[in-house]
Amino acid sequence: MSHRSYNFSAGPATLPETVIKTAQLALWDYEDSGVGIMEHSHRGPLLTKVFDDVDENIRALANVSDDYEILFLQGGASSQFFMLPMNLLGSDDTADYINTGAWSKKAMVEARKFGKVHEVASSADKDFTYIPDAASYDWSPEPVYAHFTSNNTIAGTQFATEPTVPEGVPLVCDASSDIFSRPTDFSKYAMVYAGAQKNLGPSGVTLVIMRKELVERGPDTLPTMLQYRTHANKGSRFNTPPTFGVFIIGEVIKWLRSLGGLRAIAEHNRDKAKILYDFLDESAFFSATARDDSRSLMNVCFCAAKPELEESFVELATEQGFIGLKGHRSVGGMRASIYNAFPREGVVKLVEFMKEFERSNR
Amino acid sequence: MSHRSYNFSAGPATLPETVIKTAQLALWDYEDSGVGIMEHSHRGPLLTKVFDDVDENIRALANVSDDYEILFLQGGASSQFFMLPMNLLGSDDTADYINTGAWSKKAMVEARKFGKVHEVASSADKDFTYIPDAASYDWSPEPVYAHFTSNNTIAGTQFATEPTVPEGVPLVCDASSDIFSRPTDFSKYAMVYAGAQKNLGPSGVTLVIMRKELVERGPDTLPTMLQYRTHANKGSRFNTPPTFGVFIIGEVIKWLRSLGGLRAIAEHNRDKAKILYDFLDESAFFSATARDDSRSLMNVCFCAAKPELEESFVELATEQGFIGLKGHRSVGGMRASIYNAFPREGVVKLVEFMKEFERSNR
Repeated sequence: MSHRSYNFSAGPATLPETVIKTAQLALWDYEDSGVGIMEHSHRGPLLTKVFDDVDENIRALANVSDDYEILFLQGGASSQFFMLPMNLLGSDDTADYINTGAWSKKAMVEARKFGKVHEVASSADKDFTYIPDAASYDWSPEPVYAHFTSNNTIAGTQFATEPTVPEGVPLVCDASSDIFSRPTDFSKYAMVYAGAQKNLGPSGVTLVIMRKELVERGPDTLPTMLQYRTHANKGSRFNTPPTFGVFIIGEVIKWLRSLGGLRAIAEHNRDKAKILYDFLDESAFFSATARDDSRSLMNVCFCAAKPELEESFVELATEQGFIGLKGHRSVGGMRASIYNAFPREGVVKLVEFMKEFERSNR
Repeated sequence: MSHRSYNFSAGPATLPETVIKTAQLALWDYEDSGVGIMEHSHRGPLLTKVFDDVDENIRALANVSDDYEILFLQGGASSQFFMLPMNLLGSDDTADYINTGAWSKKAMVEARKFGKVHEVASSADKDFTYIPDAASYDWSPEPVYAHFTSNNTIAGTQFATEPTVPEGVPLVCDASSDIFSRPTDFSKYAMVYAGAQKNLGPSGVTLVIMRKELVERGPDTLPTMLQYRTHANKGSRFNTPPTFGVFIIGEVIKWLRSLGGLRAIAEHNRDKAKILYDFLDESAFFSATARDDSRSLMNVCFCAAKPELEESFVELATEQGFIGLKGHRSVGGMRASIYNAFPREGVVKLVEFMKEFERSNR
């Protein structure tokens, strides 16, 4: 079995090696059925069990109650940017959005196509390098929901915990880049959605956890595929779902449970991020770009004291098997994405490499 | 390597074994990059090449000119049912639909949410067991497009070739269940769309081949993800696409080219279907349910002279490794789906099994 690099890509991202090995076998013949996992009918008994099990395992992992639907949709978080307001935001309604960067802004652009968008707070003044302080939040009088992006992959910021919304306001979270990375009280949320390709599985599946009362609220005149109820009523199998992706998510959730669940993975994630941030804080050459209190444990963004050396840093890192360290094209610099499945060892070795690079170039 | 059954499922369906073996290796480490195919950035060089190559190979396989965009979208054909009229059908416009069964009807339901739908012809009078004769087509005066479903999985019917539309009317085809199963003159079409899970790859990707002038026609006030131009302008990578699925499609297209392209696969498909239909025509016990001239080469639907034995037929077949022969729940009976990747040997063995069943039960 060939060598695997340390893959710091922001998404699609590193998956647990044990899950990949399971997938390799399942591709050819899933559970001695004589049929590969990609080739099984989505209505057959084996995939029915995959769908039932992943639902059950997510509820157990994250303590999600029966008041919520767990849906597997397509089109990425980008499709939730419009599907949410299309279902919930009437033209005279207002939705509140906390603007913490590119993804929040894209969500707001789509919401404005359906109703009014009120910006509760923004960190645009400092290139989104921090999470706005709760004291600055300016809620609208009667928002139909309040939306935030829990982790921001581009600037490398993360909410320490969910914002406190005015009583009765449904809280919606785009958790694409930090879902299931730490214990979360989902009962505080009306809806959480996440593209799978960072912490859950391959690209092409969007996990939606949504209060049943919200699922039913959308107009039934919308296109069938754009009503949440369509998918809820059919256990995410109204039409042919992305079966292989859901299978992988199921395996990832089982892997998370086997590690000890969200508390255990949170500790693992804090540990990994601390190794990297501690080094960045000590280094005279590299420095973290996000404000201390807003640092993401998932995407560690940093820059070099000599920006002209960043390109050669990324090149040399790639040669040495540290893949995907280039920062997002809109902000430059470097970014190490260290989601749940990223191994601690890779962070330790990256720091060694960075120390060596610093010695050679300072 | 364990035994594989003969999988007659209607979709997700059998994939070429050589493609599955390639996928198994790529999952762990794609092209010696040290990173698995699911874990590669969609903007990195290796996936850029996957996307470039699949575009080029589809154009070469099917002779698709540069007047067309080739898009990889999500949400299945069911999402094209609404996305097409959402982009092209104004509220005062009319679109013409040929109604050949459940899938056509679903497409019509979604189109009616945006504009007027005119039924050109229908085979509802005989449970959709035939393709309406061209002489019966009643076109509307100025349809913005004409839509048909080239192959109908439930009743097992298939257009022998595309219908001839009045001059200047853009022809749109849902080819989910027979795309690339035979030579097709794509220059006659304005748009062809197909869920991947029958002839192309795993579920979760929709191939759209669309004239560039139609791509640009949709209103730019629609949600960003629902405008064809969004995806066309970014090479199907506006947001994170279903990378693994597109990779598999790429491998399936290469496999088709290596077999000799659409002429070769058409011959293979005709041969397989003939073995089964010839037996059904001879048999005193089993019979094909579609009208002779409308028979699908992809989904062979049949019933037994003693309907009370159909359940035990399917059970016994399953035990003997012939999977997925139960007819669609809406029509009953049996169905053998024998798409491109289904092996001839499996059809021969199924016929042997059916002969034996007939001997024992007539």
